[in-house]
Amino acid sequence: MTKHAYLIGGGPGATDLITVRGLRALQAADVILVDHLAPDVTELLGPDSRAEVIDVSKLPYGKQVAQEKINELIVTHALAGRTVARLKGGDPYVFGRGYEELQACREAGVPCSVIPGVTSAFAVPAAAGVPVTHRGATHAVTVVSGHLPPGHPKSLVDWAALAHSGATLSVIMGVKNAPAIASALLEAGKPATTPAVVIQEGTLSGQRIFATTLAELGHTIISHEVHAPAVYVIGEVAGLTT
Amino acid sequence: MTKHAYLIGGGPGATDLITVRGLRALQAADVILVDHLAPDVTELLGPDSRAEVIDVSKLPYGKQVAQEKINELIVTHALAGRTVARLKGGDPYVFGRGYEELQACREAGVPCSVIPGVTSAFAVPAAAGVPVTHRGATHAVTVVSGHLPPGHPKSLVDWAALAHSGATLSVIMGVKNAPAIASALLEAGKPATTPAVVIQEGTLSGQRIFATTLAELGHTIISHEVHAPAVYVIGEVAGLTT
Repeated sequence: MTKHAYLIGGGPGATDLITVRGLRALQAADVILVDHLAPDVTELLGPDSRAEVIDVSKLPYGKQVAQEKINELIVTHALAGRTVARLKGGDPYVFGRGYEELQACREAGVPCSVIPGVTSAFAVPAAAGVPVTHRGATHAVTVVSGHLPPGHPKSLVDWAALAHSGATLSVIMGVKNAPAIASALLEAGKPATTPAVVIQEGTLSGQRIFATTLAELGHTIISHEVHAPAVYVIGEVAGLTT
Repeated sequence: MTKHAYLIGGGPGATDLITVRGLRALQAADVILVDHLAPDVTELLGPDSRAEVIDVSKLPYGKQVAQEKINELIVTHALAGRTVARLKGGDPYVFGRGYEELQACREAGVPCSVIPGVTSAFAVPAAAGVPVTHRGATHAVTVVSGHLPPGHPKSLVDWAALAHSGATLSVIMGVKNAPAIASALLEAGKPATTPAVVIQEGTLSGQRIFATTLAELGHTIISHEVHAPAVYVIGEVAGLTT
């Protein structure tokens, strides 16, 4: 009999930042498909867990084929009568490809639920002491993917508009394109002195924090050899870091 | 001896959408200060809990005085040797005044930790079937407070810029100002047919969902007598609701 699939947001990394609902779904699963950014499943479930754990970040395919393979694994296991947990970092619907997996389940007749998670885009700055909103400083916060540079033909982001919106910017997947992103914001008139903060491996033991400015953002990332996963925040609140 | 204060994000409403860390801090607290939008603390802790629960939404003061009174309660109890849990709806740093409470603790010498929560701005749409991001549809999502109408002298939001940014908009605290917000976005050139969805009391038993368009957003909210707490999403992803 077909079983249920759960798309679970694991939160920013620390294992106790998963939700209670997410942890329970994980404990009830027969098969668990984990990302490389998901919290540690052995630590979450303990050594006695009998669930089969599949690390889908190690699938030997390109990115798009790997996603199709993940969809197929979720569906195949659920149709074979196994309760499936798909454990992701952050939240399944915040750049998590969760909707694609939900669609795959629907098309295959597999009942599927999404369990939200704490998004890294807000919790990683928080772990570094930075509130993404603060009364009197900002009334909006934008989470934006930096995986494409400004002006890229496939980019769906108007960086000049974001420079003027008044929103705090929390950029994820943007390490490589940080110099280009900073340039685009500066060219649009965002002040060079706007505070910024870079957080690598937020909430994990390797966490590193660098306070900087918009003008120095690219240099900061390059000179400290910041690597993914990292989040950077641009806006007045970034100056509140402690 | 001074004890610790924990500012806990309770998530969007359902009691099992708090984080494991948040629940543990709540269970260890001597005094719990709760908002009216926080998840139900009796359901979270069970009837045998010996913690003192104070509903700070019932403080007989205006909004700003009430916040000062809350800061004072947190500090006073912690200085008196009681572990304090401050339980909020959503996330403490996403329009939760968390940083103000952290500052009050610091000034008083009270050690204080922030425990992030699942933000209602993303989880409430998810509960209604709407992913705030989806590959090919959007590379950004903005959470914006609608508590001030566009053009208000104290507003820190450039709604015209948000209309052009390409980001999904998730508007919280914006029921009353929905007609003015929709007008500002339309005037800035955002298409009238842009999908929108309104969710009242998301993740709770009274949840109501209304699919609409940007042009009809104000009318939808008025005609269905939508009241707070509610979130509305404007953008292509709002059309994915099921």
